[in-house]
Amino acid sequence: MKLDHVGVVVKDLEESIAFYTSSFGMRVTHRAANEQLGIDAAFLDVGGSELELIAATRGDSMVSKFLADRGPGLHHVAYSVPDIRQALADARAEGMELVDAEPRIGLHGVPIAFIHPKSVGGVLTELVEHA
Amino acid sequence: MKLDHVGVVVKDLEESIAFYTSSFGMRVTHRAANEQLGIDAAFLDVGGSELELIAATRGDSMVSKFLADRGPGLHHVAYSVPDIRQALADARAEGMELVDAEPRIGLHGVPIAFIHPKSVGGVLTELVEHA
Repeated sequence: MKLDHVGVVVKDLEESIAFYTSSFGMRVTHRAANEQLGIDAAFLDVGGSELELIAATRGDSMVSKFLADRGPGLHHVAYSVPDIRQALADARAEGMELVDAEPRIGLHGVPIAFIHPKSVGGVLTELVEHA
Repeated sequence: MKLDHVGVVVKDLEESIAFYTSSFGMRVTHRAANEQLGIDAAFLDVGGSELELIAATRGDSMVSKFLADRGPGLHHVAYSVPDIRQALADARAEGMELVDAEPRIGLHGVPIAFIHPKSVGGVLTELVEHA
């Protein structure tokens, strides 16, 4: 497993991009939105891994609920795996609760799946399979 | 800046190490404690970056307070920088509030410094300078 990215919930995506690019010198590598989930996101390169900034596009987004409950901040960690179906089967065999029983296509256009935080010590954990 | 590690607060360090090594196949690279801060930690390799598992060793540790307030989960993100004194000066010039005004030696034996989460969109952010 490789640390693929860290997901951070932000209040304002453009302001946050400006902060990380200006103050920390990071570079945006990818922008994507998912209207169904009500999220807008930007990925920034941090030396091979990425920082994903995630904002809500509407009030009933899961990200809006996260913001209301906890405020902006760290949201999830994602690991890349060579075979996401095998990794999900392994996680299920270990008794972990899966948010996504089957891989779905994420904002990067590759298969992803989330494992419930209660199975990973409170950490919302994403698996990613790059081509 | 390179994503150096992600810090995760855990209730029980040995149980968490067993989980990540057994279920996710990670490998412990380093163990360290800081009695002054009341923390015990383990670093696991995740493809060049690291996952830092952090447990409290006593009830008045900052980690105990975090556990009581938010429960176990994501705690901080750390970026490696080539020159931590310059990075801290830059952060101060940008108006960021520093937890550590000067670098101190972290659990890896190299200079580190934390920036206050209120200056980084709710994300407790650590800078690390490796040799």
